[in-house]
Amino acid sequence: MSAQKPIRTVGLFGKYGSKGAGGVIEKVCGFLRGRGLEVLLEQATAEFMEKPCAPSRSLDEIGNEIDLAVVAGGDGTMLHVARRMAPHGVALIGINLGRLGFLTDIPTERMQVDLAHILDGEFESEDRILIEAEVVRDGKVLHTANALNDAVINKGALARLIEFETWVDGEFVNSTRADGIIIATPTGSTAYALSAGGPILHPTLPALVIVPICPHTLSDRPLAVGSDSRIEIVMAATSQQSAHVTFDGQTNFALHDQDRIRLRRAAQPAILIHPKRRNHYEVLRVKLGWGEQY
Amino acid sequence: MSAQKPIRTVGLFGKYGSKGAGGVIEKVCGFLRGRGLEVLLEQATAEFMEKPCAPSRSLDEIGNEIDLAVVAGGDGTMLHVARRMAPHGVALIGINLGRLGFLTDIPTERMQVDLAHILDGEFESEDRILIEAEVVRDGKVLHTANALNDAVINKGALARLIEFETWVDGEFVNSTRADGIIIATPTGSTAYALSAGGPILHPTLPALVIVPICPHTLSDRPLAVGSDSRIEIVMAATSQQSAHVTFDGQTNFALHDQDRIRLRRAAQPAILIHPKRRNHYEVLRVKLGWGEQY
Amino acid sequence: MSAQKPIRTVGLFGKYGSKGAGGVIEKVCGFLRGRGLEVLLEQATAEFMEKPCAPSRSLDEIGNEIDLAVVAGGDGTMLHVARRMAPHGVALIGINLGRLGFLTDIPTERMQVDLAHILDGEFESEDRILIEAEVVRDGKVLHTANALNDAVINKGALARLIEFETWVDGEFVNSTRADGIIIATPTGSTAYALSAGGPILHPTLPALVIVPICPHTLSDRPLAVGSDSRIEIVMAATSQQSAHVTFDGQTNFALHDQDRIRLRRAAQPAILIHPKRRNHYEVLRVKLGWGEQY
Amino acid sequence: MSAQKPIRTVGLFGKYGSKGAGGVIEKVCGFLRGRGLEVLLEQATAEFMEKPCAPSRSLDEIGNEIDLAVVAGGDGTMLHVARRMAPHGVALIGINLGRLGFLTDIPTERMQVDLAHILDGEFESEDRILIEAEVVRDGKVLHTANALNDAVINKGALARLIEFETWVDGEFVNSTRADGIIIATPTGSTAYALSAGGPILHPTLPALVIVPICPHTLSDRPLAVGSDSRIEIVMAATSQQSAHVTFDGQTNFALHDQDRIRLRRAAQPAILIHPKRRNHYEVLRVKLGWGEQY
Repeated sequence: MSAQKPIRTVGLFGKYGSKGAGGVIEKVCGFLRGRGLEVLLEQATAEFMEKPCAPSRSLDEIGNEIDLAVVAGGDGTMLHVARRMAPHGVALIGINLGRLGFLTDIPTERMQVDLAHILDGEFESEDRILIEAEVVRDGKVLHTANALNDAVINKGALARLIEFETWVDGEFVNSTRADGIIIATPTGSTAYALSAGGPILHPTLPALVIVPICPHTLSDRPLAVGSDSRIEIVMAATSQQSAHVTFDGQTNFALHDQDRIRLRRAAQPAILIHPKRRNHYEVLRVKLGWGEQY
Repeated sequence: MSAQKPIRTVGLFGKYGSKGAGGVIEKVCGFLRGRGLEVLLEQATAEFMEKPCAPSRSLDEIGNEIDLAVVAGGDGTMLHVARRMAPHGVALIGINLGRLGFLTDIPTERMQVDLAHILDGEFESEDRILIEAEVVRDGKVLHTANALNDAVINKGALARLIEFETWVDGEFVNSTRADGIIIATPTGSTAYALSAGGPILHPTLPALVIVPICPHTLSDRPLAVGSDSRIEIVMAATSQQSAHVTFDGQTNFALHDQDRIRLRRAAQPAILIHPKRRNHYEVLRVKLGWGEQY
Repeated sequence: MSAQKPIRTVGLFGKYGSKGAGGVIEKVCGFLRGRGLEVLLEQATAEFMEKPCAPSRSLDEIGNEIDLAVVAGGDGTMLHVARRMAPHGVALIGINLGRLGFLTDIPTERMQVDLAHILDGEFESEDRILIEAEVVRDGKVLHTANALNDAVINKGALARLIEFETWVDGEFVNSTRADGIIIATPTGSTAYALSAGGPILHPTLPALVIVPICPHTLSDRPLAVGSDSRIEIVMAATSQQSAHVTFDGQTNFALHDQDRIRLRRAAQPAILIHPKRRNHYEVLRVKLGWGEQY
Repeated sequence: MSAQKPIRTVGLFGKYGSKGAGGVIEKVCGFLRGRGLEVLLEQATAEFMEKPCAPSRSLDEIGNEIDLAVVAGGDGTMLHVARRMAPHGVALIGINLGRLGFLTDIPTERMQVDLAHILDGEFESEDRILIEAEVVRDGKVLHTANALNDAVINKGALARLIEFETWVDGEFVNSTRADGIIIATPTGSTAYALSAGGPILHPTLPALVIVPICPHTLSDRPLAVGSDSRIEIVMAATSQQSAHVTFDGQTNFALHDQDRIRLRRAAQPAILIHPKRRNHYEVLRVKLGWGEQY
């Protein structure tokens, strides 16, 4: 959402199946039209509204037609929409339906005020790194996906652990026996990677963090590398008992022995729009129960 | 293996499918017979030997007939045999085929010397706590199992996390969102629980340790309770997406929402026999790379 | 505070220099006298009251004359008084002046109701392990101390780290290079040891936990041993640059190279009296922000 | 050490008081002169050699006269020299006298071969971020220092903990009660920060990592921020009982209540020269015992 490109059409996205989302979407719809903007509903969002307030488009199409996306839901909904809008360069605004989210930082009671300010040009825009991944088997790319939070390679339900090698920029890092491994963006560093012992990366840091999950070797510690790095996880030749890779905890792909998962920064970032009052560390303090100022 | 009960019959158990185990079993067989003892082979062990050196019995039967079990394999084999022999009060000796194990502490090159000493009464005997678990659904016990290392409740392959409550001795401890939770014996405290951030418990400590796996709440820390405690994990009512419980990483059972997993110390411990030279901390130093004496 | 021994004389202890403590002590004084009990004030407590409500005794003497100690303060005050009353077998009741404490679990607004119930025999009594420590130099005992929470051996202000050996029951455990090492009781397991990565031990667990502080070797993990263990930390021969040992973070002693710090369970436990409603895990949930029941 | 600037004069630095260093310095001296280069000895290095092999200069002067520094010692010596040579843009080569170091990666037995290759232009050069710090009291800068590994704010010997606020780029991050806090460069991320639970940062990552030491709040986790960030630690108004700040564990300054420690990237990096065969991850694998390739 650059100053150069005026906002004409706004896409609305609601948390799937959420009643609360429907009401919020309707209010936002009315508000935006009152400002003279065109509104499109994402199709699944339209389907759970009794009377859709605007025409709908499929998730595949909508990115081509809108200049801005407003998402009503939690961080999960935001991740889902962000992965799809990033390739179109469409910026996102997140309205949280419940608790404060890391990505959805506008509470419903402030949404009209905040949207008004944003449309008036009072906002902050952030580029967030996305990961682009491909799974290679026998030299062929079988699957591609992207992730705003993380790509997670994990053992199957009944396996004790999986074995794999990690390579960065063509250099061998180490072999690991673990529950799995997380490759997280700065955005994802406050999600699963944090539970697995990873550091918090500032959203603007050009880095990815590689976090082993319950590694057998206790010195296998989180490793932060530049966001331009090419990371490759190579599954060992021994039976991995249904290992799999998941993206943002939302889509997944089953892995075989010797599969290679190649990860790097996607060409297009996700663009997040925040009201000016936003403070990154305040969100962390609230979410993590950190100590306030003396 | 008390002083009162003389050793007459020894059962031999080898790592399933291991060639090395066959040769070791044969040598042990000859050695024990040379000492005038009767020998029985566990059936699966007999089946992978070209010429079984002794009569065989099924795993179900053999515990009734033997006074001592000699296991050639790794810690995994030892766990497997220990769970089955404990109810019979049969003590175990572990011969490691490869690397030093926490449970299999006799190297093959010392096995005859060590066995001779042990049969002459020069040994140390240790009682190791076993966990006895039952899975209760709608008030009925659906599954029972025991474990020498740990019972692990884990998310299914594609789930992001599971939710459950922990209760100890009828008191509510907390609700947790995590990859899972480990209930480990002192023996198991150096296995998976250690990778998940748990403490090392001395083998003789009358304790169990409850270790959450990648908990969402960062203050959810490992909790050590008395070994007489009754621990109960209650799966939340929300969809758990194929959670399951595994015992020693070797057997498992699929869980439903609201299942209750009840755990307590088994009536009978596993009895481990060690040569006198054994030193618990030396094994830890070797396995964990700890600093040696100045 | 056993059923056999009637309560005749109660000692009162306030947080040193705290204004709030004075008022609470006065109220408790009046209440206890109204119940026909004799009251004695600890001397430092009497000194900061404008009009002491009862005769005073020094901290050295008071333990010989009282049957029960009521402490108004925080956990720090409680630690201080508990170390001194334990040898006399005098039980303690803790009234917290501010936030809920692990040891001071009666809020001031409930103190009269709770004290009435306790004096009527409705209470729970807990024995808490104390550590008894001695510092040995050149074969001579130079210093002795006890601790209800922990003994901490720590580097001096300007040192990078200290080096020492750990021995348990005469067996060498390992050599460590670290900021220091904590030996904590179950009571102390929720204090400094928790910040250093230690587990939470249930208060009744007969265990001590040995927790290295920022160890150089990443596999140097917390170790829980039986409470009957004799633990010995031996400072290395190299210059330790003003290492020292502190007890409950309140008293300390400067260490030299090759000093030996010997630790074991004290003969007498601290006896804590709680109202019946108390729930150990509830305190943990409040203090640590754990998840409540679904 | 750019291609443009020819090497004419080389400075030699030995580990202070090390006998081994003397012999190595002599050999290097002879080798360099054989290549037609001028050699200068750092003064303290010259003083512990029986017959100094070259003229000496003080640490303050030598940086003005040399084009390259060769350091024989451990990582500690390298840190010491690097902080002093960085402002002069003088590159460093590290010869390890004992074990492989993170910074001193040329073993003595390879030093002539490696130096020959390096002088022939076969080398890799790395810029390593230095931290520049100032301590501000009552608005005045009282102390300045720089660090290649880390700046550490730490409690005094007898304090239980210190309290301080962390600010990044003028934004309040949080208040912390802890043993202290580490601000580390990528170079320092494998030193003390790693023992305190920090991540490993790739040497080229433009980041600093802020790692609390044994924080009271368990969710106070390591935070990686951009290397252009201005970090400020503000000591609380309460008595800090002799807190202090140390730089690379080698120099230090005593802190008062309300002191502000301001940290940012120094204008000049340290320049490290490595033989071409060097592999960053190989050093990590050796030092941390990581798993080798399958």
